[in-house]
Amino acid sequence: MAVQLPSLDESELAAIDAWWRANNYLTVGQIYLMANPLLQEPLKAEHIKPRLLGHWGTSPGLAFVWAHLSRLIKRTGQKTLYITGPGHGGPAIVGASYLEGTYTEAFPKVTQDEPGMLRLFRQFSAPGGIPSHASVTTPGSIHEGGELGYALIHAFGSVFDNPDLLTVAVVGDGEAETGPLEGSWKGISFLNPERDGAVLPVLHLNGGKIAAPTVLSRKPREEVRELFEGHGYDVIEVDGHDTPGMHYRFADALAQAYAKITAIQESARVGEWDGTRPRWPMIILRSPKGWTGPHEVDGTLIEGTWRAHQVPLSGIKSNPEHLVMLEQWMRSYRPEELFDASGAPTELVRSANPVETDLTMSGTPYANGGRLMTPLDLPDFRDLAVPVEHRAADRLESTRKLGELMEEIYRRNPESFRLYCPDETNSNRLGAVFGASDRAWMEAVTPNDEKLSRSGRVMEVLSEHNCHGWLEAYNLTGRHGLFATYEAFAMVSASQTIQHGKWLQEADELSWRASIPSLNILLSSTAWRNDHNGFSHQGPGMLQLLLNMGSKVARVYLPPDANTLLSVADHCFRSTDYVNLIVQDKQPQPQWLTMEEAIEHCTRGASIWEWAGNEEGFGPGDPDIVLACAGDVMTMETVAAAEILKAKLPAMRTRVVNVVDLMTLRRPKDHPHGMSETYFRELFTDTKDVVFAFHGYPGGIHQLMHGRPDADRFRVRGFIEQGTTTTPFDMVVRNRASRYHLVMDAINNAKSLPKGAEDLKLWCEAQLLRHHDYIREHLEDMPEVRDWRLGEL
Amino acid sequence: MAVQLPSLDESELAAIDAWWRANNYLTVGQIYLMANPLLQEPLKAEHIKPRLLGHWGTSPGLAFVWAHLSRLIKRTGQKTLYITGPGHGGPAIVGASYLEGTYTEAFPKVTQDEPGMLRLFRQFSAPGGIPSHASVTTPGSIHEGGELGYALIHAFGSVFDNPDLLTVAVVGDGEAETGPLEGSWKGISFLNPERDGAVLPVLHLNGGKIAAPTVLSRKPREEVRELFEGHGYDVIEVDGHDTPGMHYRFADALAQAYAKITAIQESARVGEWDGTRPRWPMIILRSPKGWTGPHEVDGTLIEGTWRAHQVPLSGIKSNPEHLVMLEQWMRSYRPEELFDASGAPTELVRSANPVETDLTMSGTPYANGGRLMTPLDLPDFRDLAVPVEHRAADRLESTRKLGELMEEIYRRNPESFRLYCPDETNSNRLGAVFGASDRAWMEAVTPNDEKLSRSGRVMEVLSEHNCHGWLEAYNLTGRHGLFATYEAFAMVSASQTIQHGKWLQEADELSWRASIPSLNILLSSTAWRNDHNGFSHQGPGMLQLLLNMGSKVARVYLPPDANTLLSVADHCFRSTDYVNLIVQDKQPQPQWLTMEEAIEHCTRGASIWEWAGNEEGFGPGDPDIVLACAGDVMTMETVAAAEILKAKLPAMRTRVVNVVDLMTLRRPKDHPHGMSETYFRELFTDTKDVVFAFHGYPGGIHQLMHGRPDADRFRVRGFIEQGTTTTPFDMVVRNRASRYHLVMDAINNAKSLPKGAEDLKLWCEAQLLRHHDYIREHLEDMPEVRDWRLGEL
Repeated sequence: MAVQLPSLDESELAAIDAWWRANNYLTVGQIYLMANPLLQEPLKAEHIKPRLLGHWGTSPGLAFVWAHLSRLIKRTGQKTLYITGPGHGGPAIVGASYLEGTYTEAFPKVTQDEPGMLRLFRQFSAPGGIPSHASVTTPGSIHEGGELGYALIHAFGSVFDNPDLLTVAVVGDGEAETGPLEGSWKGISFLNPERDGAVLPVLHLNGGKIAAPTVLSRKPREEVRELFEGHGYDVIEVDGHDTPGMHYRFADALAQAYAKITAIQESARVGEWDGTRPRWPMIILRSPKGWTGPHEVDGTLIEGTWRAHQVPLSGIKSNPEHLVMLEQWMRSYRPEELFDASGAPTELVRSANPVETDLTMSGTPYANGGRLMTPLDLPDFRDLAVPVEHRAADRLESTRKLGELMEEIYRRNPESFRLYCPDETNSNRLGAVFGASDRAWMEAVTPNDEKLSRSGRVMEVLSEHNCHGWLEAYNLTGRHGLFATYEAFAMVSASQTIQHGKWLQEADELSWRASIPSLNILLSSTAWRNDHNGFSHQGPGMLQLLLNMGSKVARVYLPPDANTLLSVADHCFRSTDYVNLIVQDKQPQPQWLTMEEAIEHCTRGASIWEWAGNEEGFGPGDPDIVLACAGDVMTMETVAAAEILKAKLPAMRTRVVNVVDLMTLRRPKDHPHGMSETYFRELFTDTKDVVFAFHGYPGGIHQLMHGRPDADRFRVRGFIEQGTTTTPFDMVVRNRASRYHLVMDAINNAKSLPKGAEDLKLWCEAQLLRHHDYIREHLEDMPEVRDWRLGEL
Repeated sequence: MAVQLPSLDESELAAIDAWWRANNYLTVGQIYLMANPLLQEPLKAEHIKPRLLGHWGTSPGLAFVWAHLSRLIKRTGQKTLYITGPGHGGPAIVGASYLEGTYTEAFPKVTQDEPGMLRLFRQFSAPGGIPSHASVTTPGSIHEGGELGYALIHAFGSVFDNPDLLTVAVVGDGEAETGPLEGSWKGISFLNPERDGAVLPVLHLNGGKIAAPTVLSRKPREEVRELFEGHGYDVIEVDGHDTPGMHYRFADALAQAYAKITAIQESARVGEWDGTRPRWPMIILRSPKGWTGPHEVDGTLIEGTWRAHQVPLSGIKSNPEHLVMLEQWMRSYRPEELFDASGAPTELVRSANPVETDLTMSGTPYANGGRLMTPLDLPDFRDLAVPVEHRAADRLESTRKLGELMEEIYRRNPESFRLYCPDETNSNRLGAVFGASDRAWMEAVTPNDEKLSRSGRVMEVLSEHNCHGWLEAYNLTGRHGLFATYEAFAMVSASQTIQHGKWLQEADELSWRASIPSLNILLSSTAWRNDHNGFSHQGPGMLQLLLNMGSKVARVYLPPDANTLLSVADHCFRSTDYVNLIVQDKQPQPQWLTMEEAIEHCTRGASIWEWAGNEEGFGPGDPDIVLACAGDVMTMETVAAAEILKAKLPAMRTRVVNVVDLMTLRRPKDHPHGMSETYFRELFTDTKDVVFAFHGYPGGIHQLMHGRPDADRFRVRGFIEQGTTTTPFDMVVRNRASRYHLVMDAINNAKSLPKGAEDLKLWCEAQLLRHHDYIREHLEDMPEVRDWRLGEL
């Protein structure tokens, strides 16, 4: 049955209003003051910070919503997570945590007294301090308020498989203009009221961005309502700026929303749900930007306009009138009722907080998801081993094995693992998961649908932003998963990958932030094998971005076959606090290593493949040339090149090195996976030239090799942005990374050459000519359209 | 007055239907056939391609809309551009161009006869051929159908300042799920009916993506209607699959939409518009996926489901039954009515085409915008020169000068230049443009608004996707502009930058594609000076991505001051077919070069700053060390380091090299801007060590230097992902790129050292300790909050 909250009683009203005033006071203090935090003496110019930074406009609204949610929590015990969409509302959220006592727990020097308050004020948006937006340093936040667009996405990700959680996402009307945000309202089409928690969006229309109004604040009101009803929501509107009127109206709106949510959940959980996607409630809150702040300054309207966005009163140090206005403004909150003589929040203020820390929104473990994390129950990946009796004898779509692994993970972890994939699960050969779970789907289902149901937990939506961000929030609340997508289109959500990496890097420095599952990304339709799709589908940019990400966080794996993929995946699913990027194509590919070999290879990260080179007969000493490779297609070309050399130039001593964990190439001081210099020399020798075939842009290897002995000796072949609609083999030829190029590179760079080397180069050139003829013929003269795997092993 | 189209007459119906059948026939042929294109003999297995690729599902709907638009054009002479949102509808659009004769103009071997048709079929999604989506190789396309999300964005960008143009954007219901697409309906809030053209969105709900239904196709119909009414559109719905019924209904819907559009435009253009944002029409077209194709195969429903997405009939070579079905399917279009014995389209089919090539949607010059481009009327940027009597004497926000330049460009080019900026024009110090134009805004305006009006042409919307894509399409239709954004958040639209770069690179290989204005991007709130905003705002990832973009296309400029910025901007605004990335911060910065010097410096791309080094007294010979720099903050640190060396170690011979055009560092064979090896040696010597301070990730320079003489001697300092809320100077210290680090690097790497060098290193270390103390003190003991510019010049 729906939980019906009573109307606000007087003591609640008094507490909420006091808490709100206290929070607003703290926000103003954070923006302006470097002394006299309690206004125990008249405000003077020297109390004002020399540089005024921060964002007033959105803060009072954020604090208002928070205060009312605390009342809901107190009344119901509802586990609640608060997501601060309006980027720069940091002071309000920091202030909330301070008033709830969790800030002091996280940062013991920021005490609930005058010195602590002063520290709170000074640290804000100041060197050595905290940024002006809700961030990783803010208790209660799983959401960085810097880059806008992901508030609702994170909200939905947080409640999947968390039936007891209510996530309230405040969406600013600036953020509401971004593509990712507009694309995220449809989260309800994937939200199961029985098994998942609820999201309550609060669209906070306060009218302005930095310097102009927002679209939603200026559209006709009926249109806005219609828009969100069209998105499938039950729209509740609250308007105004009067108090206590707004308190009563918002409390009622919240009560109404909560009653609807609990009614929906209750009916689903007692089996009374007819399966129709519920009309979940949302609130549109219209309150002035800079509410309770200066209404007009120097004859110009501030409150309710974009002018309230940042610092509404400026030049205070030199403008005594503004100084007076600031003091009046701060005193309008009646600080003497809010903080006692020591500076601690009064009982009245504190009475607005939920009693148990874990129930406060700043202290909820859902916002520090590592506290709730349990490791995945993983099957033994060795059971899925591909038998490799003869190397490269059979071709296999390696990612199918990962699908099988995940099928079993789904079975064993029905509440803490999900796959997120933009409509490509089958296309990426991961379809085995459908043996354990359907696709999640709350819209209509027809008899012809397959693997699509209310109870499904495989997440498919044609939006990289949603997939990526849902998984991020699923991770941030302590659960596990994988985001699988096309390599080229991983760039759509590149910014999210980077921002999440920054989050993890900063979280690592905060002892109170518990470890969370790694963000696992699989790129399985890669640059080299989008031959038929053409240039727009060919781009290894994401891999390059990971190379520049902080080394605490970034991990890149390039498994060359199925067994290495299984070993890598097992490692990634066990790991925490990383961004694990796995790059492997979905097309059939040769299988190289037995499971035992694969595990050893992955453990080392890179090793010599003796069987691929021809060093055996030579006795001790260095090879003439090292052929190194990273990436499935590049591995195939390299092994093929070594085969050619073995067959046609057996006197040349050739070594093949395969790299599966790319970061092992960095120096140990540059990356924790970096291999020792001893091992590096063992693989690559001291001085012999290395021909390196790399999945990504060649510059990536140059960058990784920097500082290694004689790095100039590495000749790198890789993707050089030569793409089109062509054959897989033509792709490697166009990018000058084919087996024939590698053989010629080897010959051109080996220190000593056996007889016949020049002939072999000529032979390679002839092969390439033959290939070019084939392509030209096909284009110009249209011969028989042959199977286009010509030229592969 | 509204233009009212009459109902379809019989001859029109016959022509449209025949054209549609012909197009569908060509689509099926492209997917399946490698011989017997006209079905002049019974279909045999050997006529079928060995690998079946392509996407049937969306194609018939795309062709249907095209055919009806041609009729509208024939009736009205309306200039019309067609944007194909559904990614893989390529065959229909290629087929349309083929039937209109423009394909043969662009690709003379693909003639309108049997051999030409065979070539058309064979080249499709085949090696050496074309991709399966509408692309740069498709006449009539300004839109790459690979990465989804930008159909409507491109549509709006194309019609800004093009009052005579109607752009029809077909949005697939798969694409409709992406964030960028959902965020692009609001284009009408920025579209002026008087001055701009019109966009007619056709949302094509055919029900499926690759492997599952779509959200919009399964939401309740009323909800979908409400959603788009809420977006502000006048929704016209057309449903079904019956013919000729669908022809009549769609023709009526189109007539209705066109009447509304012309009525809106007419009233605005005769001065009768009340200024309310018009309710522009849109069409929701519900037709089955794979319409007119096999309804059921082997007992499974195909038509109208996701199973029709790609190749509905497979295994044809080995399944005689499927072969029969394919032949029946193709013959159901009655090819004998559509193509004459030679294979040319019959008069009936051709009669559906607009007569003038420029009016056909495949031949419109708007889709080959270079044909319409006129160069910008640019003021002389020298008139805006900043006087530099004493170097670095005054600090200036350099980007303000660019604002002034653009103000004048706006004035002189009122129909072909726009600035696109996510709500940051003022914040980026470009506000001078408001002297010439307001912000574009069609929603309500209030008396307190500033620089916001119907007539405004400065584009501000809080969406990087919209800003970027609007400019792309503005460029692709021949007009000029600039996209200005935060450096870190440029990553939001990184994927668009990359895809547009690929477009330009491919267009360069097509002689019939005319040159278009370059895409100019300014990153003006950079990693180094987002000190107060913290880590989420600090990231030079976009610059790194440009380094891996094709060298035909990518240009990167790092002007160190205002005069160099003006010179660079002038060059960029004159250029065509590039992606020009300009990186310069908006904060006050020292001014180094007079305008004359700036022009010479920019012309060279990189040069020795004699005044900054101390080589003068030394006579001929190499310096002991080269201090190189690229980027404003890095230039400041480098000049400061050189100052320290001059003052404290005058016997050490130091050279300063500044790089403004980053691509000059590449070898001439790797990039057209690459400097000659002679000039490279002139700047950097042959063997002396170079300490390089770089705006971006250090690996970027290693990558650019690859292949240069003794590249290992370059020690690069740059952004190493050490960010937080701190002082500008602390940012360079944290990333080990401060003046003191550079001095120590210089001493550590110089081949011969004068006396006193070790002392100077100690002094530098002491400076850094002092700085660390300052930061620690601030954090730990909260001293006076000082102006945080400590440590800068």
